[in-house]
Amino acid sequence: MIIKGNILNVFTDEIYPGEIEIEHGIIQSIKEVNKDFNDIIVPGFIDAHIHIESSMVTPSRFAEIALKHGTTSVVADPHEIANVMGVEGIDYMVNDAKHTPLKFYFSAPSCVPTTKYETSGAEIDSEIIDNLLSRPEFVSLGEVMDYYGVINENKNIISKIEVAKKHGKPIDGHAPLLSGKNLQKYVKHGISTDHESTTKREAEEKRRMGMKIMIREGSESHTLEELIHSNGEFIVSDDLRADDLIQGHLDKCLRKAIDFGMDPFEAIRLVTLNPAEHYNLNAGSISPGKCADLVFINNLEDFKVKRVIINGNTIFKKQKLLYRAKPKPLATTLHITPKKPEDFDLKAKNPSCKSATVNVITVQDNTIITGRSSAKLNIDKGIIKPSVFEDVLKISVVERYGGNTIANGFVKGYGIKNGAIASSVSHDSHNIITVGTNSKYMARATNKIIENKGGIAAISNNDKLDLPLPIAGLMSDKPVADVAKNSTELNELVHKMGCDLRSPFTTLSFMALSVVPSLKITNKGLFDVDANKFINVVQHED
Amino acid sequence: MIIKGNILNVFTDEIYPGEIEIEHGIIQSIKEVNKDFNDIIVPGFIDAHIHIESSMVTPSRFAEIALKHGTTSVVADPHEIANVMGVEGIDYMVNDAKHTPLKFYFSAPSCVPTTKYETSGAEIDSEIIDNLLSRPEFVSLGEVMDYYGVINENKNIISKIEVAKKHGKPIDGHAPLLSGKNLQKYVKHGISTDHESTTKREAEEKRRMGMKIMIREGSESHTLEELIHSNGEFIVSDDLRADDLIQGHLDKCLRKAIDFGMDPFEAIRLVTLNPAEHYNLNAGSISPGKCADLVFINNLEDFKVKRVIINGNTIFKKQKLLYRAKPKPLATTLHITPKKPEDFDLKAKNPSCKSATVNVITVQDNTIITGRSSAKLNIDKGIIKPSVFEDVLKISVVERYGGNTIANGFVKGYGIKNGAIASSVSHDSHNIITVGTNSKYMARATNKIIENKGGIAAISNNDKLDLPLPIAGLMSDKPVADVAKNSTELNELVHKMGCDLRSPFTTLSFMALSVVPSLKITNKGLFDVDANKFINVVQHED
Repeated sequence: MIIKGNILNVFTDEIYPGEIEIEHGIIQSIKEVNKDFNDIIVPGFIDAHIHIESSMVTPSRFAEIALKHGTTSVVADPHEIANVMGVEGIDYMVNDAKHTPLKFYFSAPSCVPTTKYETSGAEIDSEIIDNLLSRPEFVSLGEVMDYYGVINENKNIISKIEVAKKHGKPIDGHAPLLSGKNLQKYVKHGISTDHESTTKREAEEKRRMGMKIMIREGSESHTLEELIHSNGEFIVSDDLRADDLIQGHLDKCLRKAIDFGMDPFEAIRLVTLNPAEHYNLNAGSISPGKCADLVFINNLEDFKVKRVIINGNTIFKKQKLLYRAKPKPLATTLHITPKKPEDFDLKAKNPSCKSATVNVITVQDNTIITGRSSAKLNIDKGIIKPSVFEDVLKISVVERYGGNTIANGFVKGYGIKNGAIASSVSHDSHNIITVGTNSKYMARATNKIIENKGGIAAISNNDKLDLPLPIAGLMSDKPVADVAKNSTELNELVHKMGCDLRSPFTTLSFMALSVVPSLKITNKGLFDVDANKFINVVQHED
Repeated sequence: MIIKGNILNVFTDEIYPGEIEIEHGIIQSIKEVNKDFNDIIVPGFIDAHIHIESSMVTPSRFAEIALKHGTTSVVADPHEIANVMGVEGIDYMVNDAKHTPLKFYFSAPSCVPTTKYETSGAEIDSEIIDNLLSRPEFVSLGEVMDYYGVINENKNIISKIEVAKKHGKPIDGHAPLLSGKNLQKYVKHGISTDHESTTKREAEEKRRMGMKIMIREGSESHTLEELIHSNGEFIVSDDLRADDLIQGHLDKCLRKAIDFGMDPFEAIRLVTLNPAEHYNLNAGSISPGKCADLVFINNLEDFKVKRVIINGNTIFKKQKLLYRAKPKPLATTLHITPKKPEDFDLKAKNPSCKSATVNVITVQDNTIITGRSSAKLNIDKGIIKPSVFEDVLKISVVERYGGNTIANGFVKGYGIKNGAIASSVSHDSHNIITVGTNSKYMARATNKIIENKGGIAAISNNDKLDLPLPIAGLMSDKPVADVAKNSTELNELVHKMGCDLRSPFTTLSFMALSVVPSLKITNKGLFDVDANKFINVVQHED
């Protein structure tokens, strides 16, 4: 089979008209020809770091859209589903991904559970990591988020790093704002990448230590402009919401990178040759012996994807996908009994008191870091009541792993006037988290999610909407477009309910993440991240 | 332990005064300080491709000199000793290398024996390759010289390549002048490096296909000037005679590279970061977690090595080596009986004839490619006689592996007037090869080598000299300086004998290499490389 076009060579920064001979899906040879072609053929794009669960669709559904945008390989870290279901969940991702032409490689999640301060569904120890890294589709140890553990030579995380070294597979990093001596302590264990830099200065310090910088340009983080001249090694998306994915993937990043002034050949290497070399994937260049994963684009400015070939097979052409995704089913059970409104009540210790002064989580837009404040709330029939007027709402985390625990607290910043929202996407353990103006709404929203076996939901006095995520409570088997539409409508409803956070459910999903400052709530209670301990919701009752 | 100086950062092209904290031989951290230092600290130099046997000394003796020149690691391909002694020989190299601070990594020799047209001492099959590559010190499959086999999908060589892929270890190439479709057939098997390019054009074609170019600057090949702007990935020496080694190693190459106009930071990466990354060595940069292999140089122009540190230990300082080499003994037996002059006679078929027209190998200086010619020689008492007057001398190859075979032929170009030279260094099977003006001298030179259990020797009517190479007939356990002096004297003697080849013994050592055009002689007879078959020495007798 012969493929013709203007071939882009990532080794020499050349583009020349040529013919690519392909046999058994492998590039056999490239012949320069003296012809005129319109399109440029580039190597298929590779996202070196992404959590598919963040798109709230299965790998096979993710692939349907990513392929159209020229993505032919991803290195996926199934960290979220691993927290919910351990190896069973990871295997689901691997198996669902098998039924799509897009090549899914995986990182073995290194930090499951993330903390001991919430109840998660599984634990992944170094023995499991050893098993995973024995499998060829697992190409790295997933981002080592437990930098505290690394710096302090915590045996649990160090043993996983040693296992990765034994397998000769790279170790991915996650070191937000880590600097100086602590950064060096982290790097010295062989952790070779980082995708958390948000400033050029931060990236530069890490690069100086030998780390390879992943420029993150996803739904929750846009660092491409800041890091455009920081000699990054990769462009990755990390997390990509369905509504963003539908707009583009690495093609969009390339367009932006060129806009911001990056050399186009350099930009292309960040999503082709570099990830292929780092993770030892047989891809990333148009050269003999490499898999024939090829993308036709119109030019080096628009990066409009016109045709996508994987292993020599055309998968996308003339705006049409030439295969059909068949997501695998997964029977997920939320181990949780339906909730009653009173489960969400916060009872006063002394019912005869009139008011309680409470600790309040304060949310800010566009950051997963929370603040803290206090509020004086009324006690009515022994129950501490939220104050819609002051925007001090109820927030609760409902365990989904059989223990039937629940923690109730207060939160400021959501602005909901009448209703509740809830989600089983709640980093990193993915218990059900809900915010609302009263316990009745919160119970209804939570029960909707239980009924749907996972998902997100919003309910107000006028409306209700939900998006079922029955696969591990994280993903839908519906197409990306449906999920994007559904979640956009949900966001609109929540905005109508009075919330002006840009992305209310995303913000919500980080309220239980007890490793990010400063006040969070898990199913075990209100957690002071700065002090690294649980604290009481109630300061005092009067 | 703290090491201070101006630290060169291979990631960022910076030099800054700093302190390197080292613990258990590993760099823990780097601290910038506000001080004045004289010397620049660079990562230890790494030669990504070298055959130690070419220096005619053991690895431990090689190390004594290379270390002084800032070499801290080499990737050695023990191809020569493997041809003589197989795994036993390879293990000798590994074990001898263990007793020196210089870090020896190894390639598993992929082409032993090189051809079936000569008798070698061993065969290395894919099972042995599998065993070797299971060992951590073996970091790659050695140069795949059998490009003909690769191109034609010969099972023997392809199975070795598959084994290397299974181990996830890189496959080194050797593809002199390979081009076009054949080059692509070669590259498609995943062969990732090449050190045979002699022109920018050749290097460019290989780089286009994704090969990493090793710029070769050794004793027999000087390509640094030609390839200076060809985006090479490494600088390697491949073969380094003792008399060259004594003058310098990669430090000398760096000096030259700068002279030829290469950016110094780029040049340093070619012998530090790049080989370390390609062969997955824990070295190549001054960064946390890397082995503290450090070289103090005076500046980026002279590259004068002032101090060498390996694993945190100072090995060389103030022109003094701070350890002592202890070469390991190896009892090598040449399986060969002493020779008589008549063994070297070429008998006429018909003793009554007066003359014979014979095929003659013609040697040219500075190339291992031979030509061919004819000569009419006298027959005296049934023996075809050489003609010193016409510089048509005798050449013979004496098997050393027990079969007691011998092949006699004629050679033009040596210019020896009276005497013989002989060598047990004779690529790739290392039988004894000898050239002389008569059979008596040839027998004496050969017997000297048998007596010495290997080596090189020259004998004339006035003089005789020899250099014993008792280790596999390839290496001496004497210091490099002694071997260099001895071989220089030998060369001088041969020049005095009338030979004006620049390096007579090197030229001699390639006369049996039946894979390089065009007429060669092995212990099995006169071999026409172009026709790929043995031919008769005698064309006809008159």
